[in-house]
Amino acid sequence: MGTRELGLPQRAAADGLPSRVTIWEVGPRDGLQNESTIVPVEVKLEFLDRLADAGLTTLEATSFVSPKWVPQLADAEQLLDGLQRREGVRYPVLVPNERGLKRALDAGCRDIAIFGSATETFAQRNLNSTVEKQFDMFEPVVSGARDAGMDVRAYLSMCFGDPWEGPVPYEQVVTAGKRLLDLGCSQLSLGDTIGVATAGQVEGLLAAFAEAGVGVERLAVHFHDTYGQALANTVTALRCGVTTVDSSAGGLGGCPYAESATGNLATEDLLWTLEGLGVETGVDLDKLVATSKWMAERLGRPSPSRVVNALAG
Amino acid sequence: MGTRELGLPQRAAADGLPSRVTIWEVGPRDGLQNESTIVPVEVKLEFLDRLADAGLTTLEATSFVSPKWVPQLADAEQLLDGLQRREGVRYPVLVPNERGLKRALDAGCRDIAIFGSATETFAQRNLNSTVEKQFDMFEPVVSGARDAGMDVRAYLSMCFGDPWEGPVPYEQVVTAGKRLLDLGCSQLSLGDTIGVATAGQVEGLLAAFAEAGVGVERLAVHFHDTYGQALANTVTALRCGVTTVDSSAGGLGGCPYAESATGNLATEDLLWTLEGLGVETGVDLDKLVATSKWMAERLGRPSPSRVVNALAG
Repeated sequence: MGTRELGLPQRAAADGLPSRVTIWEVGPRDGLQNESTIVPVEVKLEFLDRLADAGLTTLEATSFVSPKWVPQLADAEQLLDGLQRREGVRYPVLVPNERGLKRALDAGCRDIAIFGSATETFAQRNLNSTVEKQFDMFEPVVSGARDAGMDVRAYLSMCFGDPWEGPVPYEQVVTAGKRLLDLGCSQLSLGDTIGVATAGQVEGLLAAFAEAGVGVERLAVHFHDTYGQALANTVTALRCGVTTVDSSAGGLGGCPYAESATGNLATEDLLWTLEGLGVETGVDLDKLVATSKWMAERLGRPSPSRVVNALAG
Repeated sequence: MGTRELGLPQRAAADGLPSRVTIWEVGPRDGLQNESTIVPVEVKLEFLDRLADAGLTTLEATSFVSPKWVPQLADAEQLLDGLQRREGVRYPVLVPNERGLKRALDAGCRDIAIFGSATETFAQRNLNSTVEKQFDMFEPVVSGARDAGMDVRAYLSMCFGDPWEGPVPYEQVVTAGKRLLDLGCSQLSLGDTIGVATAGQVEGLLAAFAEAGVGVERLAVHFHDTYGQALANTVTALRCGVTTVDSSAGGLGGCPYAESATGNLATEDLLWTLEGLGVETGVDLDKLVATSKWMAERLGRPSPSRVVNALAG
């Protein structure tokens, strides 16, 4: 059987799918923070530069979470100091609290993201807070950022399932998500943190937001591929009108063969879908694949992205 | 962050998806024939037994293709001789020609499958024939099998893209597929042999079959995960009314980290979706995961199935 690979998928539009999609690249932050290897700041800077060169326009660069919890991103200031910002590219950073906001302001950031929880257990474990108290914690962060002219995105974790609480009711997610938006966030990214969701849940949650009056243009989706569902769920979300999708170059953050393949949706696999659907993204797939292959070599392990393996082999 | 895994997805039906799906398990045939390791016949027999025990009811057992081409399945007679057939389980075997049919009849098979090509280049390379001549080759096989009371499925390869010819026109696929059905085959399995398809093509091809008067109940889909699209395309096909899906336990046939991750859709990843959608399959996911983990150990490499890695870790 022949093994010559085709460079790009053939194109055919599909019913009810959008003509334009924004990829929110989370590899440098959500990807690298979940890798066991700590990547030197020079490598991160080259990574960001290569991602921008490939045509990605939203690069979540790093996080101001305490280095005690996320040693992988302890070099946030150094990174932002060395970053060659490109015109037309946004470099949001994750900010957990007012101290983080101050650091982001000092580093010249113009876009930040906060991260909340839809469930009590995760609010306790990840934020050392409660679902209710997190809004008090985020309020001064969002208002301070907005006063400084920043744009603020909100992540909401555990939107579909929680490892301690199980299924998460739609209403609970919608209530928490609306509270975050009401603080002044421009966008809400719905995270399937443990990767358990399937198509019916995705439709159900998006319908619940619509019923609650939250326009789909304010929503993004953030799927992890723990159970192989990330791309199928993304296509379902696109059918529901979502046009911003989070993904991670090379599927960073997940090990392709270890027990916990909890990585994000790989940007390359998403791009293959979007190219196939004739959706313009402005991203050069070959450049991105070369970048992810290069990063996998830095990490000393193969990429979990199917497309990277197929094209870079 | 918590890492305790949930045993099963929570359930939520989705619009336009079927309530019942038949899984056509191809791991013992399409999976093992693409593994570099040659598995002993005793291991194959235990594999088949465990798959039936997990609740799968269609197990494509082996192939009567020449051992010169597929040494992995050279033990077809031995396997079928040792097979403890279970009531309610079908064990189709792949048959390339009249000689293969005779061997299948001698081995007591009741279900066979033939495999055709939608493209000239693949017909030449895989069948040493042409698109037109393949029907002459298959005609006596199908009629002989039907005369003997057998059920015959037809596979059609390269339905979406061909590595030498590129995109394959829908009409070309429909014409070849109808010819195979008209020979007397009960079902046509549409194969994305090189894994390039995306949602729009899946919809387009299924619509072309519907327009040509082929009922969707006669169609199955067979996706490979080379570019990570297999499950997303399967969900799209389910939305179009397809209710028979081919998959391979543990994603057998694909290496999780080598250049050519050309495996089939993993049955476990499909099951996760179906369970999530509330579709009854009768398959015990835990038993299947344990079986795929056991087989991965026999093959000396991890499973490419995300669910197997998440649950068996």
